Amino acid sequence: RHFSDVRTVTLIPGDGIGPEISAAVQKIFSTAQVPINWEEVDVTPVKGPDGKFGIPPAAIDSVNRNGIGLKGPLMTPVGKGHRSLNLAIRKEFNLYANVRPCRSVEGYETLYRDVDVVTIRENTEGEYSGIEHEIVDGVVQSIKLITEQASRRVAEYAFQYARNNGRSKVTAVHKANIMRMSDGLFLRCCRDAAERNPDIRFEEKYLDTVCLNMVQDPSQYDVLVMPNLYGDILSDLCAGLVGGLGLTPSGNIGEGGAVFESVHGTAPDIAGEDKANPTALLLSAVMMLRYMDLQSHATVIEQACFDTIREGNYRTGDLGGKAKCSEFTDEICKKIEESN
Amino acid sequence: RHFSDVRTVTLIPGDGIGPEISAAVQKIFSTAQVPINWEEVDVTPVKGPDGKFGIPPAAIDSVNRNGIGLKGPLMTPVGKGHRSLNLAIRKEFNLYANVRPCRSVEGYETLYRDVDVVTIRENTEGEYSGIEHEIVDGVVQSIKLITEQASRRVAEYAFQYARNNGRSKVTAVHKANIMRMSDGLFLRCCRDAAERNPDIRFEEKYLDTVCLNMVQDPSQYDVLVMPNLYGDILSDLCAGLVGGLGLTPSGNIGEGGAVFESVHGTAPDIAGEDKANPTALLLSAVMMLRYMDLQSHATVIEQACFDTIREGNYRTGDLGGKAKCSEFTDEICKKIEESN
Ligand SMILES: CC(C)[C@H](C(=O)O)[C@@H](O)C(=O)O
Ligand SMILES: CC(C)[C@H](C(=O)O)[C@@H](O)C(=O)O
Repeated sequence: RHFSDVRTVTLIPGDGIGPEISAAVQKIFSTAQVPINWEEVDVTPVKGPDGKFGIPPAAIDSVNRNGIGLKGPLMTPVGKGHRSLNLAIRKEFNLYANVRPCRSVEGYETLYRDVDVVTIRENTEGEYSGIEHEIVDGVVQSIKLITEQASRRVAEYAFQYARNNGRSKVTAVHKANIMRMSDGLFLRCCRDAAERNPDIRFEEKYLDTVCLNMVQDPSQYDVLVMPNLYGDILSDLCAGLVGGLGLTPSGNIGEGGAVFESVHGTAPDIAGEDKANPTALLLSAVMMLRYMDLQSHATVIEQACFDTIREGNYRTGDLGGKAKCSEFTDEICKKIEESN
Repeated sequence: RHFSDVRTVTLIPGDGIGPEISAAVQKIFSTAQVPINWEEVDVTPVKGPDGKFGIPPAAIDSVNRNGIGLKGPLMTPVGKGHRSLNLAIRKEFNLYANVRPCRSVEGYETLYRDVDVVTIRENTEGEYSGIEHEIVDGVVQSIKLITEQASRRVAEYAFQYARNNGRSKVTAVHKANIMRMSDGLFLRCCRDAAERNPDIRFEEKYLDTVCLNMVQDPSQYDVLVMPNLYGDILSDLCAGLVGGLGLTPSGNIGEGGAVFESVHGTAPDIAGEDKANPTALLLSAVMMLRYMDLQSHATVIEQACFDTIREGNYRTGDLGGKAKCSEFTDEICKKIEESN
């Protein structure tokens, strides 16, 4: 590899357990000799000219420069009118598709076996538009905004994702029986994308039906694409099937870049105690490596992580084990070294 | 009993399998000597003065007169612009709370044991307002409407329901982190109701978190109250945990009356073949009896239904058995007669 192949990645360690799990990922990456440089940035909210707190300009510049980021969980500032920084990042960089693969983790038993689904969520609009009004006292409206542009983009992305990842079906999830115009538009964009991608099977399902089927037999689904809020709900449901948000990665994909993040909370109760499970952030970082086309590094790290969980001797507390975050991390590093 | 105790109930048999399962309920009710008269009405949509198809006035009059109804599944008329008649009925009679208990059915195994939750869904507004606009080409907004009046009403109902049914906790389900004003208003109404009902425990949870927790451990929930769409989603998810919509009842409660309904589809593929499972409609009818304070009839019928499913010799096809709808029904009737 030439020096010029080494890319710089923005790292947002985050709050609470964020710094610990970020350090774990960094250690594992350097053991695996991943050719990236970390550019660590602080996203402690700063007051902007409008008096509102937001992401510091230096952090924004870093992501814009590098086009790629990894982030831990961020606390939402307390107090009226503050919006989630997690969301601010998705919006700021126009990261239009949120991809969350959910796979059963071998050796970690839940009620379900062989779950393997991917939710792809429109990430910039819909119920998350932030447009709300009090019309008269006691009467509030929130606006769900669906645009053809954003819907087409995420629909097309879903089919491309399916193809690039050897998957065979895309399910569009909607409530166009109720929101005929908005979900109807979203659905039409999915149908158009399906026509452009005839090698991938396509089906349409109501969100309520998908939730019902998903808890009975997740194997009937493959890749699912849907408006923002439905993706929020369904991705958490699917994470529940395989063991929770501590085990599932997430990637926010944009036109010019991508930010990968673990979507669990900051877990302030155990922060700083070396007890956190870094798996979700590590698997998000593995998604990032695949996105950067560093396939072999991705495979080695992912394998070491899953092997460690499967063997069971170094599981963190959330998985019923007694290992510290650092012990779990060291075991993964050991496996990576052995595989060299 | 005096003759005057015999109340008249509107029966909307519905489409597809509706007539068969309605006949099953009628047979079981007459075997159990339930003191009600059925007033059967036809709700085949008629064209109103505005050119739109809707519920026939005679059917509306019947429900208004009797204040209580039982309905099977209704087909949504095909063609642009038609709205679900199932929804039309909820709106027409201002049936503000949709109550859906989900309990594990003994002897019918799913991945979950001892599920026992009740979703209470605001049933008149929210994402179901029907207000949508195309602002410019390719940009659509749907309006979620939350009012203090409807939110207060359903929140208060949830606490009363909990108390009247020996339940101890109400969980308000929301996304007020995203829809701060609308879900925020809903949540405030729930908090107020909690203050007025200090004997019932109260908690607030994000919808995504509830979905995640529900598939991992439903026992942490009891009664859940939420805006319209969230209830649509969560009630189907919960039904999935216990075996699907063929086993779960539903009641739409209003100020002046109530309509109970099975929420599964019309199952046109098996309609008329004596194969349908009448359980959901029967259990909805049992809810109706409790609402009418006919407790002992309710208990006898419910017990006979659950005993028949548990014993397993007369299960319908959807439950893995070979019994016809009429055989299942006759077995329930036999048990009711024996219990006299
Ligand atoms: C933190 C919260 C605002 C966020 C969301 O609602 O999208 C989270 O639930 C997620 O899924 O990433
Ligand atoms: C039939 C459909 C319009 C309805 C809804 O969305 O409410 C159904 O799913 C329900 O839950 O009763």
